[in-house]
Amino acid sequence: MDYITGVNKKDTLEISEIVSGDYIDKEIKINGSVHNIRDMGDVAFVILRKREGLIQCVYEEGKSGFELSEIKDAATVEITGVVKPEERAPHGLEVRITGIKILSLPSDVMPLPIAKWKLKTSLEAKLNNRSAVLRNIKERAKFKLSEGIVRGFRDFLYNEGFTEIHTPKIGAKGAEGGANIFKFEYFHRPAVLEQSPQLYKQMMVGVFDRVFETGPVFRAEKHNTKRHLNEYTSLDFEMGFIDSFEDIMAMETGFLQYTMNLLEKDYARELKVLGVELPKVDKIPQVKFEEAKRLVSEKYDRQIRNPYDLEPEEEHLIGQYFKEEYDSDFVFVTHYPSKKRPFYAMDDPADPTFTLSFDLLFKGMEITTGGQRIHDYQMLLDKIEARGMTTEGLDHYLNTFKIGMPPHGGLGIGLERLAMQLLGEENVREVTLFPRDLSRLEP
Amino acid sequence: MDYITGVNKKDTLEISEIVSGDYIDKEIKINGSVHNIRDMGDVAFVILRKREGLIQCVYEEGKSGFELSEIKDAATVEITGVVKPEERAPHGLEVRITGIKILSLPSDVMPLPIAKWKLKTSLEAKLNNRSAVLRNIKERAKFKLSEGIVRGFRDFLYNEGFTEIHTPKIGAKGAEGGANIFKFEYFHRPAVLEQSPQLYKQMMVGVFDRVFETGPVFRAEKHNTKRHLNEYTSLDFEMGFIDSFEDIMAMETGFLQYTMNLLEKDYARELKVLGVELPKVDKIPQVKFEEAKRLVSEKYDRQIRNPYDLEPEEEHLIGQYFKEEYDSDFVFVTHYPSKKRPFYAMDDPADPTFTLSFDLLFKGMEITTGGQRIHDYQMLLDKIEARGMTTEGLDHYLNTFKIGMPPHGGLGIGLERLAMQLLGEENVREVTLFPRDLSRLEP
Repeated sequence: MDYITGVNKKDTLEISEIVSGDYIDKEIKINGSVHNIRDMGDVAFVILRKREGLIQCVYEEGKSGFELSEIKDAATVEITGVVKPEERAPHGLEVRITGIKILSLPSDVMPLPIAKWKLKTSLEAKLNNRSAVLRNIKERAKFKLSEGIVRGFRDFLYNEGFTEIHTPKIGAKGAEGGANIFKFEYFHRPAVLEQSPQLYKQMMVGVFDRVFETGPVFRAEKHNTKRHLNEYTSLDFEMGFIDSFEDIMAMETGFLQYTMNLLEKDYARELKVLGVELPKVDKIPQVKFEEAKRLVSEKYDRQIRNPYDLEPEEEHLIGQYFKEEYDSDFVFVTHYPSKKRPFYAMDDPADPTFTLSFDLLFKGMEITTGGQRIHDYQMLLDKIEARGMTTEGLDHYLNTFKIGMPPHGGLGIGLERLAMQLLGEENVREVTLFPRDLSRLEP
Repeated sequence: MDYITGVNKKDTLEISEIVSGDYIDKEIKINGSVHNIRDMGDVAFVILRKREGLIQCVYEEGKSGFELSEIKDAATVEITGVVKPEERAPHGLEVRITGIKILSLPSDVMPLPIAKWKLKTSLEAKLNNRSAVLRNIKERAKFKLSEGIVRGFRDFLYNEGFTEIHTPKIGAKGAEGGANIFKFEYFHRPAVLEQSPQLYKQMMVGVFDRVFETGPVFRAEKHNTKRHLNEYTSLDFEMGFIDSFEDIMAMETGFLQYTMNLLEKDYARELKVLGVELPKVDKIPQVKFEEAKRLVSEKYDRQIRNPYDLEPEEEHLIGQYFKEEYDSDFVFVTHYPSKKRPFYAMDDPADPTFTLSFDLLFKGMEITTGGQRIHDYQMLLDKIEARGMTTEGLDHYLNTFKIGMPPHGGLGIGLERLAMQLLGEENVREVTLFPRDLSRLEP
């Protein structure tokens, strides 16, 4: 009987192995994609792209065992060669090629010069040529950092006793209701794509005390802005037995601290490639919604137009204010008006026109909405009634509160927005693998 | 300025802290949900449910500082009490209550006796009362094990150099095409819910060499069986620079080895609660599709009806065969007929009526489909043409192959099916938080 016994070590090396220094003057094997070729006549530099970066291989006519014309950019190859120190090459070494096995050849040229350090092209072109563009070293590094954020979120929450859950994306009713929801037919019944795991994660607080989910959410919003997507990755958590809604902000701050450390430690290469400086997250100021409005109105001489919500420009100015006054890239804006928050938000007992809720602004943009939720069944019913809503479709959710729920709250973080602000990008699409917006459904 | 500085240690303890032994004879605080109350007259046992399990608290009339009638099952409370050794209690200790703070009270009784060790109720009732049923210790333990599987998948693949990606669930065209696809209107354009991240993860192999995703997939199949869901969590990976499709099976075996170790180490409590014995995964036999068919046909005297696919009963018998003959719960069935595999599957050069693909059976049920994919542009075009398909909607996918792709392959694992077989459940819905099937769209 033939058995599969697990992962076998291959005889090809990864860049981190070669860079260790153990292979100087030794013959090694390495595979990868030909990122580009610089032909100098008798000698050519064949730059190989691997998941850990680029490595310089040297072709020498008559010594490398093949004709340079046999390969081209975007070929995939397995190279045999001898590792030699070379100060001018990446990692201070190069591989002098002694043999090659061509694994595949492209049938067309790159639509864009992806081997250039910085791609000077429009966002539109970048999104239309995703398979090619992301092979650019800077472009792909963005998505490694996104990975690091999600990894940090999960690992931090595991350590804090949270349980990961998977809630359905197809539902009978959206968490927030309203018009911004994709509808479809599910075996002859009306169904929706969930805008948020909100109602499900609350239901699961009664089971696991603390839960989180990292998954797609869907918003049929007709916004065509630099910061809106119609599908995005939401980092959600919900926690029970809180003493106040500050516990939720404390947990988010802990996540940011953990994640910035993780990025510094495990994603140093990508931070360097992108020139990203990590923000300080040792302490995050908090300010009440009305106070924040007043502060920027006074400092920047700006009239308050909408007393119930923050306009994007106001968010921007609040970010600027806290950077200037407190040298902080982050600020928690708390106590949003009740009329702009969903029915499940807990009103502030001190003034029920406001809620025990918050947004987290990062460099002047909202990246998180969170807060304490109502945990009392009757209080929920009363608020639903006071809003003129019906309980239709909310039976299972409401039944959860009938059978007892601890004081609890949680939040949702937009992954792409957090990444956008961390990387200093101008458009959320820059940090989305395959964005979905009003006009884009492909690739 | 008020700052949030990160997670503060609370003065309430978790069960693992109390169990450490450091708190014997000391007064502590602990919060949780009242799982049930056993009133013995002057004394009552108040069993508290926390995320780490149950803990016995003892109410003594006149000493505990409140009337027992003030609390009831499903109340959430913060208890002050003294830790005392007690052999007959869980963890060998109990908390003698000296004070209580009631955090919330339920407004109704439990619809099912969830405090019983084993819930004797129908699957239908379990699914209709999700918020209550999952508070049962055995029921919720299932989902901790599911968490462990996903966690093992990610951690193992991170270690193996994979990059995590998030691909869109809304698309213009499904990966496999066909009728089993949910359709909807996306801003006046036809759109679908993705059946699989297949085409996207292949596109990303050209970028990161190795990628994975854990996320929802959607199948509009009209199957109403014990093993089908219309939305499930798929654990997908795709890897480049493979030497053969055995590399993919080796990676999956590595994942199973890593994950069984993780479960044994970090999820021992849940394994014990559920009485789960972990399967051996040191080596997994592989057998060709045709050979597997022949073996069970001979041993179990069963006629081969469909030469191109495995019927569920045949899968079951193959599982039985390899258990009986090789004491293995797993078996890789390889070389599925080309006509039953999707267009992107790599045909076997030795016999193109078969593919370099496999299914992994676990206790006689398919939990994975994987294989090598075509990486040559022209070969892909030829296969699409030979199948009478069109390239419509495949432009972005096909462009990826034009610009060079390494030999690669991957797989998709159905999380719920893997959990179902691991736990010995009869129905995949038992291990799905909120299943979606032909008749179920709520909760």
